[in-house]
Amino acid sequence: MDKTTFTAARMDRLTPYVAGEQPKDKQYIKLNTNENPYPPSPSIKDAILSELENLYLYPDPDSFKLREAIASDCGVSPEYVFCGNGSDEVLSFVFYAFFGDNRLNDRPNAEPMLFPDITYSFYPVYAAFYNILYKTIPLDENFRIIPADYSRPSSGVIFPNPNAPTSVCLEYNEIRELLEYHKERVVAVDEAYIAFGGESMVKYIDKYPNLLIIRTLSKSHSLAGMRVGFAVGQPHLISALKRVKDSFNSYPVDRIAAAAAVAAITDKEYFNKTTAKIINTRERFIENIKEIGFSVSDSKANFVFISHKTVKADILKAKLTDSGILVRHFDKPRINNHLRVTIGTDKDMDYVSEVLRKFAQ
Amino acid sequence: MDKTTFTAARMDRLTPYVAGEQPKDKQYIKLNTNENPYPPSPSIKDAILSELENLYLYPDPDSFKLREAIASDCGVSPEYVFCGNGSDEVLSFVFYAFFGDNRLNDRPNAEPMLFPDITYSFYPVYAAFYNILYKTIPLDENFRIIPADYSRPSSGVIFPNPNAPTSVCLEYNEIRELLEYHKERVVAVDEAYIAFGGESMVKYIDKYPNLLIIRTLSKSHSLAGMRVGFAVGQPHLISALKRVKDSFNSYPVDRIAAAAAVAAITDKEYFNKTTAKIINTRERFIENIKEIGFSVSDSKANFVFISHKTVKADILKAKLTDSGILVRHFDKPRINNHLRVTIGTDKDMDYVSEVLRKFAQ
Repeated sequence: MDKTTFTAARMDRLTPYVAGEQPKDKQYIKLNTNENPYPPSPSIKDAILSELENLYLYPDPDSFKLREAIASDCGVSPEYVFCGNGSDEVLSFVFYAFFGDNRLNDRPNAEPMLFPDITYSFYPVYAAFYNILYKTIPLDENFRIIPADYSRPSSGVIFPNPNAPTSVCLEYNEIRELLEYHKERVVAVDEAYIAFGGESMVKYIDKYPNLLIIRTLSKSHSLAGMRVGFAVGQPHLISALKRVKDSFNSYPVDRIAAAAAVAAITDKEYFNKTTAKIINTRERFIENIKEIGFSVSDSKANFVFISHKTVKADILKAKLTDSGILVRHFDKPRINNHLRVTIGTDKDMDYVSEVLRKFAQ
Repeated sequence: MDKTTFTAARMDRLTPYVAGEQPKDKQYIKLNTNENPYPPSPSIKDAILSELENLYLYPDPDSFKLREAIASDCGVSPEYVFCGNGSDEVLSFVFYAFFGDNRLNDRPNAEPMLFPDITYSFYPVYAAFYNILYKTIPLDENFRIIPADYSRPSSGVIFPNPNAPTSVCLEYNEIRELLEYHKERVVAVDEAYIAFGGESMVKYIDKYPNLLIIRTLSKSHSLAGMRVGFAVGQPHLISALKRVKDSFNSYPVDRIAAAAAVAAITDKEYFNKTTAKIINTRERFIENIKEIGFSVSDSKANFVFISHKTVKADILKAKLTDSGILVRHFDKPRINNHLRVTIGTDKDMDYVSEVLRKFAQ
């Protein structure tokens, strides 16, 4: 019997996402998955311990307390907030709810959803998962998103702001152009890295019924290990996401994740301190490596996207790995001579600078 | 502007699952969501604390240590195990990977997937989510699954064993009939409640390439609040589930959930003690309420499915709620005169018996 008969035909569409490597063999300086180098707020410990006695009970399916904490942090009310198991799950629900087979697509020629050609590489994976037609729009030669290039019929738009892996950020006036052109479609702004210097679109949420913002606590609040992501948008968008969740998994956010997330979000002082440190380290690192012939995109993220004037990226990546440093290299058109380097501690980055200085000057 | 234009047409298919109520207004004896009345193994506390320092790092995307612990518990090797965010997420991936649009469905008349008419009410929700054709097969008048009734072309079969909300369990010889008839299709056995007296199909896993078992730690290991579920099957089935996960969310099981689950699974003695207590309480409770005119299905679960010879289920439910006891009533054909009552502690169940004795004798 041919075992392939067991899987449904839709499985042939899938090209799974490949996350950055998580080596088990030795200790590396891990600058390949954009984790925060600092531990989460110490306040999470008591929050976690206080949930231990409740673990035999299901969590609140609607994560109300967590949505309250996020809402308060974002200056909106809880019905503007949806929570999920990391922003990856939230993004998947966004694709299901809003993109690809919209009502207007009953026209003979379906309109594709749009995202940049160089961007978070999970987007085409989600599109394939739900059989959503998409079209990628090229970044310009400076890796910038050009809003005018998105002025075409679509079933929706998504992009990270700042973009990944390029680290470049759009401003409100540019995003407004997208929101206004696509006013009958959802424009999803993936703010995974917004804490590190960009301007969040949250303050414009009441102005645009088609604006949906997606965030994660993985990077900004050092909770990559806990899986908490969320979306902020007007209640009609949030209700749609809730309908998707309730048709997939009633309780994607567990009790401890919710409690830890509330504690981390509430400790604003710690958040401000750690993000300021990372921004400061990033600027120092950029200065150091520009001196030795690197070009660096204007970063508003906790990573930088770099290339060297003479030494190829794959060679540099190998040298860094040999020196115990993991970074990410994407073997893809236009960016295969770049490296994405997460910003670690000052000590981490001084060591990276030192290694780069040895091999790339 | 009509706001409904924002959602994709596929959203119209959804009829979200409705979980048992989680009241916030007062303390109830909560026998409505099949939670375990005992706390999880005390060993989870240290396991959780030991993960705190790693929370800034992503979890292992393949949950290897957890899969090892489950594999060892089930007597298989880790490549036979897939883990997800509760068995609800695992079930959703099973529907996506194996049901509904199989290759043989390129025939003019697509074959539906099959499940019982009275069963876990999330199954039709998943089917709608992925646009999967299904057909329900009636239980017999004693709420038993009759394997011969499933002898018809299908794109796969799923059922809980013991079934929910009926609590009735099939035996190996009956399930074998399903596996052999549908040998080119996946037969998924949802063993959410198998710890409470049924015989697991895990020992037959090498015999049937189409057998997939789904379990959860929510009930058996008192971890409903932590969201850990898993599937056991031959590696070709597990790889398919991994492809689905990696196209949806790289890290659905967080660090603390994985650590707590490993500790709970490893504490076999505690597991044996608590499940034995629940089984014992269940048998006492059944005996007590049979005396006062209840008929009770033969339960192999941590709940019982009951009806009274004269007093209607909705009236009894209201009386129980007034007395501070929550149970589940499904307002559906064939079972709207039944109540599903989770087995709590002896003290809980003595109180339930006492209340029932007052209103139903």
